[in-house]
Amino acid sequence: MSLSTQPYKGARDFYPEDKRRQDFMFSTIRRCVKSFGYEEYDAPILEPLDLYIAKSGEELVNEQTYSFIDRGGRSVAIRPEMTPTVSRMVAKKYHELTFPIRWFSIPNLWRYERPQRGRLREHWQLNVDIFGVQDSNAELELIMVSDAIFKAFKAGRSMYEIRINHRRLMDYIFEKYLGLDKAQAYSMAKLIDRRAKMDSSMFLAEIDAVFTPGQRENGASEKLLAVLDSDDIKLLPDELLNLESLKELESIIDKCLYHGIDNVTFDISIMRGFDYYNGIVFEIFDKHPDNNRSMMGGGRYDGLVGLFGIQPVPTAGFGLGDATLANFLELHGLMPELKTETDIYLIPVGDNIDGCLKAAKTLREMNVNVAVDLTDKKLGDRIRVAHKMGIRYVLIVGKKELDTDQYTLRDVESSVEEKHSLERIVSLVLDRRTHHI
Amino acid sequence: MSLSTQPYKGARDFYPEDKRRQDFMFSTIRRCVKSFGYEEYDAPILEPLDLYIAKSGEELVNEQTYSFIDRGGRSVAIRPEMTPTVSRMVAKKYHELTFPIRWFSIPNLWRYERPQRGRLREHWQLNVDIFGVQDSNAELELIMVSDAIFKAFKAGRSMYEIRINHRRLMDYIFEKYLGLDKAQAYSMAKLIDRRAKMDSSMFLAEIDAVFTPGQRENGASEKLLAVLDSDDIKLLPDELLNLESLKELESIIDKCLYHGIDNVTFDISIMRGFDYYNGIVFEIFDKHPDNNRSMMGGGRYDGLVGLFGIQPVPTAGFGLGDATLANFLELHGLMPELKTETDIYLIPVGDNIDGCLKAAKTLREMNVNVAVDLTDKKLGDRIRVAHKMGIRYVLIVGKKELDTDQYTLRDVESSVEEKHSLERIVSLVLDRRTHHI
Repeated sequence: MSLSTQPYKGARDFYPEDKRRQDFMFSTIRRCVKSFGYEEYDAPILEPLDLYIAKSGEELVNEQTYSFIDRGGRSVAIRPEMTPTVSRMVAKKYHELTFPIRWFSIPNLWRYERPQRGRLREHWQLNVDIFGVQDSNAELELIMVSDAIFKAFKAGRSMYEIRINHRRLMDYIFEKYLGLDKAQAYSMAKLIDRRAKMDSSMFLAEIDAVFTPGQRENGASEKLLAVLDSDDIKLLPDELLNLESLKELESIIDKCLYHGIDNVTFDISIMRGFDYYNGIVFEIFDKHPDNNRSMMGGGRYDGLVGLFGIQPVPTAGFGLGDATLANFLELHGLMPELKTETDIYLIPVGDNIDGCLKAAKTLREMNVNVAVDLTDKKLGDRIRVAHKMGIRYVLIVGKKELDTDQYTLRDVESSVEEKHSLERIVSLVLDRRTHHI
Repeated sequence: MSLSTQPYKGARDFYPEDKRRQDFMFSTIRRCVKSFGYEEYDAPILEPLDLYIAKSGEELVNEQTYSFIDRGGRSVAIRPEMTPTVSRMVAKKYHELTFPIRWFSIPNLWRYERPQRGRLREHWQLNVDIFGVQDSNAELELIMVSDAIFKAFKAGRSMYEIRINHRRLMDYIFEKYLGLDKAQAYSMAKLIDRRAKMDSSMFLAEIDAVFTPGQRENGASEKLLAVLDSDDIKLLPDELLNLESLKELESIIDKCLYHGIDNVTFDISIMRGFDYYNGIVFEIFDKHPDNNRSMMGGGRYDGLVGLFGIQPVPTAGFGLGDATLANFLELHGLMPELKTETDIYLIPVGDNIDGCLKAAKTLREMNVNVAVDLTDKKLGDRIRVAHKMGIRYVLIVGKKELDTDQYTLRDVESSVEEKHSLERIVSLVLDRRTHHI
């Protein structure tokens, strides 16, 4: 029986045309994030399973992690997220590193979930983190970085929305305003996180199930719904308006507006799945009706580095997934057509392969990318190969061309031919190049 | 108890200074391989375990593979090599693809082995493959590509050696010349592959154990040793000299010499571990006495795509590991000093953070990478942060600078200060940039 040619379920093969799209996205992102002074890091895809048990949330670890016992008896996991790893790395070199640290990475992450549009078992995720900044200038910078990424992709402000909330505001609402205990607060946070995926009667039934009979009689459900439906900070109950967390939220929204980021909005339903967030949290939503979902999420998580036995470090960060970003770019017409980076298909004719290989070498030394035809097909078929591969130029090279240094450069699309020296061909080809973003 | 900060055994964390070295290596490699018309692809790190059982060799699958059962009951492996994956991808789109195909990838691969210098559990490996070329121009091109990579790193020809052999020559020697059966030939190939790691008496004992008593009496050991000690094709026994495989070897060595690759040599001990090779095989060795080991290996493997139920495709390829390459570059003094890509550390003074963020934005829009200081440290300590981070320039910005558009650019290393407009600062910084390889 022959082997299957399918990739592993929920994961993607990247053929050259797919890889070019990924390169376009990642190189745009890298340029943008580096312009804010962030430096790239990476780490092994396998980590001790313990790393995720501490703070990642139960569902992720118990149901969605690719974990196994290695041949040496260690419990390991393929990383489902990067935050525990980067926290481990900061803790490891805590005494050598110069704070504040600005780091980013674009790791591949694995989660065992039902594959669906924009949600895959393997995806890549930009992670941007800043360690060592106590005040909300850290979160402001992260919002500016993520906004700059969308701008770098030429996205208009009407295409996406930045939604912002505060974990300490939610803690106050759950514990003080509604009187929930820790377990109730945890369940409620998870429910609110999933609210957009439920119809309203189901949501109501589920929150009622979290409240005790006494809480229900005291109108806890109505109080919670009134809060959840406040789409403006000023509509919140008076009791909440003087909270420090709310003032921090207002201040950061004001600063965003000052810097021209006017698509930022308060959204009390932004909870973020992970348990480690403890301050401002934010997400970026695609506003396209066919892809109305979160593409990016982050916030403050000051405690995580402290799990490794050192002082906690004030930290904020965000993650941005490649699959949802690709959907966004495609739906909004922002994904450019990306052709092969091979400039010239050089076709040797007659018995001149060695001379042709030398000519190709000369071209390459002047930074032109040249594929040499090594088939024994007919000339017309060889030219068709270049066309099918999307290579713009063909150079047909025989003894005469090699002897005279006059080569006919054929533009495969327009069929226009020009006769030049190799050196002149190089400058023409490099001038007209559209790839190499 | 606090969590460990160590990365998984035998795998590496890449802090920014490590990641810069990796980026330097990979971007040099990418540029070089693309100049030959190769296009990059990628694939999931998990594959069905079946993919490796067919052809990868027993030791790799049984003892060294990271394999486990996923939550859906599938036997999967973290890829220990890329060749089965790329073969799968070619087979999947066999009818859409235009041959010959030139593809490359730089995947991370996992093997459970005892970690040692240049041999890690996770490493990255450049894979370069050409599909659809029957004759040895494919192997010649691959040798030229790998040679060009070393040249791109400014390696001299005396620093490395290309060693070449032919699997069909070895098949003839094992089966016809020595009369071994398939199982004996397999064991012998593995022994020869490991010869350099054994002392000569142990090697002798081990090959004697493979031969039957009859073969030993007929002088099989002596015949084999005579062949193995022929470091020149012309010293081989007459019976072998007219073989097609030997003529192919001589021809490819001649062509290499014609193209200036004079550090190529015939080496009958080059076996390549994998079972799928069936023609010319080659490796590149570091000639440094402290790192005298194989850095790159490859050859022809025509049968692999055929395992997926389609016609076999003539194929050749090679792999080059990142850890051995890094050792090579460091030992030969070819690894450059790589500094941060952050150009300017902008330090806001007074209550001007918002104006400073705007100035930073202006600089970034002109392609300068700017980290804004967000600490509340004293000015001297802030400047020291820039110095420790290796950032070349500091810009101290207060109300006066913002109002007059005259900023003092301080070169942290030389302590030289210059006063200019933002625009002038941009052109100075970009002109003097040494990173962005």
